[in-house]
Amino acid sequence: MGLMALHIDAHAQQWIDLSHSFDNKTIYWPTAEGFELDIVAQGQTKGGYYYSANKFMSSEHGGTHLDAPIHFAEGKHTVDQIPLSRLIGAASVIDVSAKALQNPDYQITIRDIKDWETIHGKLANNIILLFNTGYARYWPDRKKYMGTDKRGKEAVALLHFPGISPETAQWLITHRKIAAIGLDTPSLDYGQTKRFLTHRLLAKEQIPGFENVTNLDKLPPTGIQVIVLPMKIKGGSGGPLRIIARINADMP
Amino acid sequence: MGLMALHIDAHAQQWIDLSHSFDNKTIYWPTAEGFELDIVAQGQTKGGYYYSANKFMSSEHGGTHLDAPIHFAEGKHTVDQIPLSRLIGAASVIDVSAKALQNPDYQITIRDIKDWETIHGKLANNIILLFNTGYARYWPDRKKYMGTDKRGKEAVALLHFPGISPETAQWLITHRKIAAIGLDTPSLDYGQTKRFLTHRLLAKEQIPGFENVTNLDKLPPTGIQVIVLPMKIKGGSGGPLRIIARINADMP
Repeated sequence: MGLMALHIDAHAQQWIDLSHSFDNKTIYWPTAEGFELDIVAQGQTKGGYYYSANKFMSSEHGGTHLDAPIHFAEGKHTVDQIPLSRLIGAASVIDVSAKALQNPDYQITIRDIKDWETIHGKLANNIILLFNTGYARYWPDRKKYMGTDKRGKEAVALLHFPGISPETAQWLITHRKIAAIGLDTPSLDYGQTKRFLTHRLLAKEQIPGFENVTNLDKLPPTGIQVIVLPMKIKGGSGGPLRIIARINADMP
Repeated sequence: MGLMALHIDAHAQQWIDLSHSFDNKTIYWPTAEGFELDIVAQGQTKGGYYYSANKFMSSEHGGTHLDAPIHFAEGKHTVDQIPLSRLIGAASVIDVSAKALQNPDYQITIRDIKDWETIHGKLANNIILLFNTGYARYWPDRKKYMGTDKRGKEAVALLHFPGISPETAQWLITHRKIAAIGLDTPSLDYGQTKRFLTHRLLAKEQIPGFENVTNLDKLPPTGIQVIVLPMKIKGGSGGPLRIIARINADMP
């Protein structure tokens, strides 16, 4: 509501970008190669006009990105196979930042969802469920955002950031019907996970995950439309995505 | 209208994907490095669960992709700077396939637009303008799609595919107000261009371009909503994009 009042040009500003940019500061998993942009051309050409072009390298799982179900479940959807109906639609935002900012090993609980539902009503069927942990404020400071700025296999044990508990994931699968799930930390599972159970449970049910989302604090708990379009990598286990949201509008 | 009648699940199928997938057959400019997916992990882990992850390399300008204004105009918008208002909204499709499929050097004319307007009315302000040349049917056959399957600098002179004439670009800038422009060939300028004038004229006006779009033959001339979300490459001159459309719906 406050946001709407700020709008001078409603058409131009009605969409809020929930995506981080990709650059050499973009955060990836400690074992993954990061984003790298190589300039191919930049400047005046012999033809007398300006020309700029680049190439880039990226791991699928870094920055604001998608986890396709196949990332953790054999035979399930690859990026290009995910139906658009799971990527576009109504969203709800559950703010767990008061707890998550106090505890870098916080795992979102069933109670967090039930408390939210007490106020805002039962999560709608086919909802895109987003959790605001508050961690987007630490981006791109790796140490604050994920607990370590070290790289390589030995750094994985040093990861500390909030995630979704496996019990919560299982409860959502059993008792609710979500289209997709996302949050503003590096992973659906918390940093200290060893078994990635939350990923595995959701992937098995064909539920895509969105990680390293930002600007969730700019959204109300309900009345949001979200559009999530990942790069269409054939056979991909994930990839860069652009996620945008609009408040108080009809279904896109 | 015919499309709508086919829908069994309206929610799931209402969006049409106008994007090609990225794989090792994806078409890039003859001088550009193509898409390359490297498998990082695939299969059962020691932890007893399945895990799949990849990394990839891509030039910005290949596959279904964005031309940011800075691609051909110094100081103009990079990918991450393009306002979402230019990427989301009402679209019109002008079918020039009857002429373009007869002439691989076809350049879309002012007359093509005026003829369309005689039937469908003047192009609306802030419209996303899409041209259907029919060339998507040739994807991913490089020889048919772009006139040559050769690579490297010497192949550029062998390029033959339709584009938008510079006169048409200038007329659109002077007499209409388009938000963005796209088509189903490798480039806004036709294959035989030497000066890329169409690119330069549009870029100078901050008008983004969408190239190698597909499925435009599935859309009616008007009454379309389009969403175009490019990978958010900071400072990028372009990049992979996902473009989707919906027929006969309210503005998203």
